[in-house]
Amino acid sequence: MSKLVIDMMGSDLGSAMAKEAVKLFHESHPDCTLVLVGKKEELTDMAGYHVVDAQDVVKMETGALEVLRMKDSSMVKAIQTVIDEQADGVVSAGSTGAFLSASTLMLKKIPGVLRPALVTSFPNLKEGKGYVTALDVGASNANTPEEIAQFALMGSIYAEKVNHIVHPRVALLSNGSEEGKGSPEGKAAYELLKQDKRIRFVGNLEGNGLLMGEADVVATDGYSGNVMLKSIEGAAKGMSGLLKKAFKRNIFSKIGYLLTKKGLKEMKEALDPKKTGGALLLGVNGVVVKAHGNSTPEAFKNAMEVAYKLSEAKVVDALRSGFQG
Amino acid sequence: MSKLVIDMMGSDLGSAMAKEAVKLFHESHPDCTLVLVGKKEELTDMAGYHVVDAQDVVKMETGALEVLRMKDSSMVKAIQTVIDEQADGVVSAGSTGAFLSASTLMLKKIPGVLRPALVTSFPNLKEGKGYVTALDVGASNANTPEEIAQFALMGSIYAEKVNHIVHPRVALLSNGSEEGKGSPEGKAAYELLKQDKRIRFVGNLEGNGLLMGEADVVATDGYSGNVMLKSIEGAAKGMSGLLKKAFKRNIFSKIGYLLTKKGLKEMKEALDPKKTGGALLLGVNGVVVKAHGNSTPEAFKNAMEVAYKLSEAKVVDALRSGFQG
Repeated sequence: MSKLVIDMMGSDLGSAMAKEAVKLFHESHPDCTLVLVGKKEELTDMAGYHVVDAQDVVKMETGALEVLRMKDSSMVKAIQTVIDEQADGVVSAGSTGAFLSASTLMLKKIPGVLRPALVTSFPNLKEGKGYVTALDVGASNANTPEEIAQFALMGSIYAEKVNHIVHPRVALLSNGSEEGKGSPEGKAAYELLKQDKRIRFVGNLEGNGLLMGEADVVATDGYSGNVMLKSIEGAAKGMSGLLKKAFKRNIFSKIGYLLTKKGLKEMKEALDPKKTGGALLLGVNGVVVKAHGNSTPEAFKNAMEVAYKLSEAKVVDALRSGFQG
Repeated sequence: MSKLVIDMMGSDLGSAMAKEAVKLFHESHPDCTLVLVGKKEELTDMAGYHVVDAQDVVKMETGALEVLRMKDSSMVKAIQTVIDEQADGVVSAGSTGAFLSASTLMLKKIPGVLRPALVTSFPNLKEGKGYVTALDVGASNANTPEEIAQFALMGSIYAEKVNHIVHPRVALLSNGSEEGKGSPEGKAAYELLKQDKRIRFVGNLEGNGLLMGEADVVATDGYSGNVMLKSIEGAAKGMSGLLKKAFKRNIFSKIGYLLTKKGLKEMKEALDPKKTGGALLLGVNGVVVKAHGNSTPEAFKNAMEVAYKLSEAKVVDALRSGFQG
């Protein structure tokens, strides 16, 4: 039985969006206990839910250090509630930097973990099903080889527990597939991973292999991982724009669009960030899921689904065992 | 009047492909002098062209150091011919590592340039026309802040001379658009660029802004640049695959495809690497263009077009002036 704490105030759209998401989520998971943190006067219609009052809201531009002083903010109170009420995790759509650093400092790193990592799942476009787990995609600006090697282990445990992949194939993001390629840190991480018997290391992977599902887990430093994530997002957005233009060309292409609509919808959904529901932080004592700041109720509900899945899969416990000794 | 040297043997498809490309190119640029380097017995049908015999072929897996010992290879002889015959540049479809290092060592860096950079042009999908110049996309594995700042200047000169953009907007690839984001090297490069009066620095740009044309030039270290390039390629390929699937869904979607075909062709061409013709090396004493190893005659011809354009625009001279003093 999972227990999740929800920051109701973090998103660009305010508590109305979050309330709708909570109701949607509750319908499919009535067994999950939810604690809602936010301005109590905005949550009076959430009868039956446990509400924790928090009068402050962390702004999108709030930095990593500043947030810790905002003790009455819904974000900080939500994280504190995880500790106080021994909940499994927390979901917020607030400032990424603030949320990641407050979560790390308050929930603390799992013993043995050098750096938590931000994780995103990419669709495996070749198989048309399943996901590729990439980390770190932006919790750090730079990482040591030891940290990158740990990301590989965290990702492997995640893929096994959450995506149910037996002996997941773990690759290192690089600028070439052969051994000896990569950034200086990546090359040193390669040496560490070759000797790590806890994971199935399959070597280097280039950015174009990720969506083709050439590995189940792709480990990288936070800077390059973020560049990869944003580049893929940008290319997908750019192509969607071109596609729209192609369909708007003339009356025939417009009819063409109508005839293809259903298949295109499936395609859009495969790449839709609303479906994947944001990113999660691995390596701290609790499930931490960051929803997009401009989440729709559906997207925020999906972020809650991710948190629920991680909690039920007992990923935090699995990481604790994995990093023991 | 430009003079270009062509390595006829480098591609996966051998000299037949290159010969067809040379003929295509010559039709549109009869004024350009071409020197063809390769096995003379395979080039007997190229009457009227100046042929330099070279009996060795550099293999795709040939490394950066190994190539220098292959003095009778078409690649090394082609680069040597640029020096001996005072040509403007060289085009090869051979091993990237070998070609870049041999070109750098033999043609030598332009005085003042710390590191040459591999440059690629991405289409500006928002405007539907024009290009965004990105560098370094893979000549280096890691770069100092000073090198990254130089890439910005080289890119700016390139965009001005070749893409005819007045005061090109130069951005730094980063993991966030605000100042203070980026890898440690990127952040230090930011400080250098802020003070550089020779360029119009517009700050940080994320990977998703590149194809949207948010800058005319994007400077980055070679590792991240390569990750960006490959990620965009992979996403474009993955989406094309999904699109194909959407159109194959049923008889209606197949008709839909036929009705949309023309617009889709335009879209495909906008993203087609065959059109852009490969990457070029900036910062050495000569025009150096690397065509894809699996180039079609059309793609190799386009790589020749790029070399011709750079030569006519006198980019090397412009870089020499730009880096003087």
